[in-house]
Amino acid sequence: MDQFINDRNTLVTDAIEGVLRSSGPGVARLDGYPHIKVVVRTDHQRGKVALVSGGGSGHEPSHAGFVGRGMLTAAVCGEVFASPSVEAVLAGILAVTGEAGCLLIVKNYTGDRLNFGLAAERARALGLQVRMVIVDDDIALPDNPQARGLAGTLFVHKIAGALAEQGADLDSVADAAQAVVDHTMSIGMALDTCTVPGSRKEQRLADGKAELGLGIHGEPGVEQVDFINAQQAMALVVDKLGQYLDTGGGSSRYVALINNLGGCTQLEMSILTEALLSSAIGDRIGWAVGPASLMTSLDMRGFSISLLAADEVMQKAIHTDVASAYWPGCSSVVREPEVLPLPEGLAPTRPTASSCESVRLLIDASCSILIEAEAELNTLDAKSGDGDTGSTLATAAHALRNRLDDMPLADTPQLLRSLASELSQTMGGSSGVLLAIFFAAAGDAASQGSNLQDALKAGLARMQQIGGARPGDRTMIDALAPALEILDQGMTHAAAAARQGANATASMTHARAGRASYVSEANLVGHNDPGAEAVARLLEQLSK
Amino acid sequence: MDQFINDRNTLVTDAIEGVLRSSGPGVARLDGYPHIKVVVRTDHQRGKVALVSGGGSGHEPSHAGFVGRGMLTAAVCGEVFASPSVEAVLAGILAVTGEAGCLLIVKNYTGDRLNFGLAAERARALGLQVRMVIVDDDIALPDNPQARGLAGTLFVHKIAGALAEQGADLDSVADAAQAVVDHTMSIGMALDTCTVPGSRKEQRLADGKAELGLGIHGEPGVEQVDFINAQQAMALVVDKLGQYLDTGGGSSRYVALINNLGGCTQLEMSILTEALLSSAIGDRIGWAVGPASLMTSLDMRGFSISLLAADEVMQKAIHTDVASAYWPGCSSVVREPEVLPLPEGLAPTRPTASSCESVRLLIDASCSILIEAEAELNTLDAKSGDGDTGSTLATAAHALRNRLDDMPLADTPQLLRSLASELSQTMGGSSGVLLAIFFAAAGDAASQGSNLQDALKAGLARMQQIGGARPGDRTMIDALAPALEILDQGMTHAAAAARQGANATASMTHARAGRASYVSEANLVGHNDPGAEAVARLLEQLSK
Repeated sequence: MDQFINDRNTLVTDAIEGVLRSSGPGVARLDGYPHIKVVVRTDHQRGKVALVSGGGSGHEPSHAGFVGRGMLTAAVCGEVFASPSVEAVLAGILAVTGEAGCLLIVKNYTGDRLNFGLAAERARALGLQVRMVIVDDDIALPDNPQARGLAGTLFVHKIAGALAEQGADLDSVADAAQAVVDHTMSIGMALDTCTVPGSRKEQRLADGKAELGLGIHGEPGVEQVDFINAQQAMALVVDKLGQYLDTGGGSSRYVALINNLGGCTQLEMSILTEALLSSAIGDRIGWAVGPASLMTSLDMRGFSISLLAADEVMQKAIHTDVASAYWPGCSSVVREPEVLPLPEGLAPTRPTASSCESVRLLIDASCSILIEAEAELNTLDAKSGDGDTGSTLATAAHALRNRLDDMPLADTPQLLRSLASELSQTMGGSSGVLLAIFFAAAGDAASQGSNLQDALKAGLARMQQIGGARPGDRTMIDALAPALEILDQGMTHAAAAARQGANATASMTHARAGRASYVSEANLVGHNDPGAEAVARLLEQLSK
Repeated sequence: MDQFINDRNTLVTDAIEGVLRSSGPGVARLDGYPHIKVVVRTDHQRGKVALVSGGGSGHEPSHAGFVGRGMLTAAVCGEVFASPSVEAVLAGILAVTGEAGCLLIVKNYTGDRLNFGLAAERARALGLQVRMVIVDDDIALPDNPQARGLAGTLFVHKIAGALAEQGADLDSVADAAQAVVDHTMSIGMALDTCTVPGSRKEQRLADGKAELGLGIHGEPGVEQVDFINAQQAMALVVDKLGQYLDTGGGSSRYVALINNLGGCTQLEMSILTEALLSSAIGDRIGWAVGPASLMTSLDMRGFSISLLAADEVMQKAIHTDVASAYWPGCSSVVREPEVLPLPEGLAPTRPTASSCESVRLLIDASCSILIEAEAELNTLDAKSGDGDTGSTLATAAHALRNRLDDMPLADTPQLLRSLASELSQTMGGSSGVLLAIFFAAAGDAASQGSNLQDALKAGLARMQQIGGARPGDRTMIDALAPALEILDQGMTHAAAAARQGANATASMTHARAGRASYVSEANLVGHNDPGAEAVARLLEQLSK
């Protein structure tokens, strides 16, 4: 599948430029393209400890996205999944390190360790104070002395970054960083591999299988497991993490970093978050960072969970404000989400029934007219639609007639609202909602003192606003609008206007709203819109 | 492909629970599952205007992720790509609306318009002040009077949210929201469709094709276009947007919202950001929101760009702080990223050459010993590796011998550093870097006053830290470490210790570091590690 890149050779520098342009002032790059790709803070004070991290690219927003106040001072970017050179790392160190010295934060991969390590020596030979922490938070391979560095690296960036910003000295910052490493554990899981730009994706996983214990370079997980659903997948991850939880006293609480490896949807990440926080170890997790894409593996459909047993210093440091837009902050975990009762007023209020013989007769007659017109309106609708306009109206009319005894017939505003309520419950489709809006808005206007004509016109205006149809769009509005306009001249005139409007729809072939907008011109010409026809018939027969 | 969900029927509520648990206090939900899925702020003051939005799910973090101080007061969530019911919307309105009233922010889709519209009428009938804005920012179908609502909706949430938080009245908030709608335009592009949970993905797009003018529900784009690369793709998008840019005076600047439709990598999004901001309309864009996943279409590999012609009120409102972790903030666009010169000190410093005959002889002899051992060490290495240890060392030794005239032979610290520099340039592979680290760290210690033995031991410690190998791991350390330990007793003793250590590697079968860790036990037993053997031979022959 294609990807939104320009050229495999420039994809890292293209991406860095995008980060620089969209991150606001305060970050810059060194003039070393293509070999030296280093993003640096320009607002760093040399009296504070500098933090330099980096490694292969493909883990965005790590690491360039985290350069800024409160996190990294420089990020040294290699090509995708390839360590940057010793010279590039040294350039990053030299560009930002002052008298307070520099901490290198290095994920535990041989290339990174060696290149950052040698760069550190060269920087020391130039008289700089340099310390280095190696992040090895992966718990997937407990027997391997060289555990990989995963998303737990972000904990180090954040906490060391906060301390450095506050002016702590190099040893304090480095020791705190090492303590974070010592108290962090991570493990990842995925349903698919990743697509290295310019390469075809390797299809390694069958449906129903997941990989547990992933690195962040597309390499196979430690084990293939059966995948059932999100909860079961998270349970496997939680089982691994649970083996390392501090059981002494049980009072210590963890910060969870919920990391999207790149290809999970936001929906999936929220479902996984729920699975983690409601899991067997959920009550041990006091704070959450994410869910967010923090240390990705390109487009891998997977996630990783990192847990930090945070002491008070770490807890404080992880909450401070940073410049990076990619850091999602750290929230307190809510053990039991608050559930509020449904508000009162949700059930339709039943207005007090009242009687008024003339209104009863009018509504009853209207219902009869619509019921009698069922077959003819259906036939008309069948020419341009699905042939159910007549039945829809007839069903609503039957239901309405059965409700007449319970309606506030003597109170016009309440009656209009009541009609809205009945229609919204008994008449299906868009037209039922639109008629309900028509009567409800009319009732609203009437309650504020409008006469019936003005109230109905207010209803029409609202129906048009919500429905989006205008006169000429071949809808019931083409009959209703002209009729309401002259309703004060009597029913006979109104009926005539409705008829004229309904008949005009037969030559409207450019329907712009409603169902007829999906129908071809040839199928529209020569017959009336069934909604407009219904309005015209209703008024004509009522006026007799 | 599998997805991280539990059950298609609970995926929206599962995801909402995840949002509630990880968003910290201040948000809750209504007790209406499964039909009524409404997330509300609990810290909302009824004296301020409430903002209610929502719609179908599948657009996460929209809209539940944006509930909180400064943005939404309630989000009403439908099933994936399906409008929530009238009752659900009404529940949301009633739950949060006080005397200041409520603004509904509705994306322009028929279902949403109707259901939010009718809910608004019902809320009005209950005496609440309700206004509604319909967001129709899509410019893909200029002839369609019903433009779709896309990611520009976020501009409305943010700006109306800021004004409401500041205490503006309903008409002010609603009018400002409408002004944002009137000044926002959006268009999307994708390389692939999306995967609706529980369904198979429709494969609609061939390689080399993209869809331009997308909605956010997986429907086909307005046109299929040829896809060449990110820059060309963005140029097509920019061409569409450019037709709507205000050309009067040319001084007005836009806010760009750079939205990941869900399936792009962070790397791609940064490349697309660069393409946008360096495009023909780049100089018209003053601020950027994102790149970020804001209004997604599940896992669609695509993006959308929304532009807002922001007046001063909008500019101010879009920059205010919000509670949501999903809002990335708004940054000033940097027209030309700052490029800093490479730091001084990057080129290896050439220490002043000095002469010392005994040192020259020692180094020269060492080089000869290693050169003579080339074939035998290669043979030894071939038993458990790729047979090049001898050649690697011989190559470095040849190069080193040629540099003797330029080295600071009389200055031990500088000489050690100089050896590091030469080895890092002439000796390939991890071992070259590790030996460079050994000599550099030794030089560092010597410069601080350590004697040669202590300096070399410091170098060894650093090499172990960076390389990760310990004694017993079948590496050169097994010969080097015991030799350095008794170097003060003279070369003969040191050489004997090295020999003993090297010979012991022949029975080390559980290599835990270096290349031998990839080799099976049977291939290791019975012969010495070539690195350790090289050290032993060197010291033995030097001691003669």
